[in-house]
Amino acid sequence: MTTNNSRTGRLYGLGIGPGDPELITLKALRLLQAAPVVAYPAPDTGESLARAIVAPHLKGWQTEIAIRVPMVTARFPAQEVYDRAAEELGEQLEAGRDVAVLCEGDPFFYGSFMYLFGRMAERFPVEVVPGVSSLTACAATLGTALAARNDILTVLPAPLEAETLKARLQGVEAAAIIKVGRHFAKVKQVLDELDLTGRAHYIERATMENQRILALDDVAEEGAPYFSMILIHRRGEAWT
Amino acid sequence: MTTNNSRTGRLYGLGIGPGDPELITLKALRLLQAAPVVAYPAPDTGESLARAIVAPHLKGWQTEIAIRVPMVTARFPAQEVYDRAAEELGEQLEAGRDVAVLCEGDPFFYGSFMYLFGRMAERFPVEVVPGVSSLTACAATLGTALAARNDILTVLPAPLEAETLKARLQGVEAAAIIKVGRHFAKVKQVLDELDLTGRAHYIERATMENQRILALDDVAEEGAPYFSMILIHRRGEAWT
Repeated sequence: MTTNNSRTGRLYGLGIGPGDPELITLKALRLLQAAPVVAYPAPDTGESLARAIVAPHLKGWQTEIAIRVPMVTARFPAQEVYDRAAEELGEQLEAGRDVAVLCEGDPFFYGSFMYLFGRMAERFPVEVVPGVSSLTACAATLGTALAARNDILTVLPAPLEAETLKARLQGVEAAAIIKVGRHFAKVKQVLDELDLTGRAHYIERATMENQRILALDDVAEEGAPYFSMILIHRRGEAWT
Repeated sequence: MTTNNSRTGRLYGLGIGPGDPELITLKALRLLQAAPVVAYPAPDTGESLARAIVAPHLKGWQTEIAIRVPMVTARFPAQEVYDRAAEELGEQLEAGRDVAVLCEGDPFFYGSFMYLFGRMAERFPVEVVPGVSSLTACAATLGTALAARNDILTVLPAPLEAETLKARLQGVEAAAIIKVGRHFAKVKQVLDELDLTGRAHYIERATMENQRILALDDVAEEGAPYFSMILIHRRGEAWT
């Protein structure tokens, strides 16, 4: 491969799907396998979930860059982390190498790729490849339609305050509460107060090997993982 | 192939993605190519969009069943159509053959597969394979994040009444207005009244060959196709 300094590389935000390695698209797979540099979010120490998802597809010759997001800030944007990552990836692009950034689910559906996109899109050519989001993966696995006909669908992040959640869930037609995790007890109480518990479906790590579907009452109040979701819908009406 | 009457076939609802044939998942492709029977929605006369999307992947030996939905009912469920389709597909399953139903985008995101699912899931084994939805495909193509951090994302079907749309768009953080089509003029007026036009992004047939991104003012009021969407978000704030 010759280095072509007159041309920068291309930044790809690749949606790699919700967890099952087979739920990657042909396009993301092609671009992943062609990119000389592969970058992915990773915890402070230990394995990257995004990398684990695509591990069966990696050939072993690519340069890998782990973007380590400190645990303390959990999944919230750590300015310096993304500043530094943008710089590191930028050096690769300036050297003419394409960089594929792995994004769990879809890059623009509550993903961290937008922090890189915001820092780099004006300086480099960027292509975003959509992926299967956890939203539709959870619905498929549960066997419950997300929304039908003219339903309004509301997606609510669980870290929101109980009052906000309650106001937005009142009389809702179809809703997904995402990133339930340690907010489970709060969410459960809101659902109880709105008498929605009977229409709520809980699932964690959808399409991953350790996926679990539980009744709300069986979820340990302190034990829900980050990748957990509750779907609410008007059963039956949507299906006929 | 021997017929095994003691075992029924399996019904697959395959999300085939938003239009680009490369945005199908490995899983959907594998199941599609293995199924002896492939079914898909189609207009009264003429080609099926779903079939066109997977055409490059078809081998030519499979039995094909077009589920013809009369134009007059547009995309709204025609009870008899799905009753008849469920019967026809049921005969194939009872004969021991797997049936793959093609679903544009994702089967459970405002899709018509749920009408078959509702009629058949109790009688036959069904597996739903999630796909890339038009929702995230539009965001990727536009280069605009759908939602970030703790944003509430609202998905609104354009056929809703203007008053409903207006009430739900008031003060919205992130929204997608789907199925714009012939409702464009109404939607545009609502956005104008809420002073949201400047934050609205219009796209039609995302990832298809005839995809178009237009300024709202450039959309012919009577001319938006069914597969058109408007995304609204707080630009900038979501990206840093």
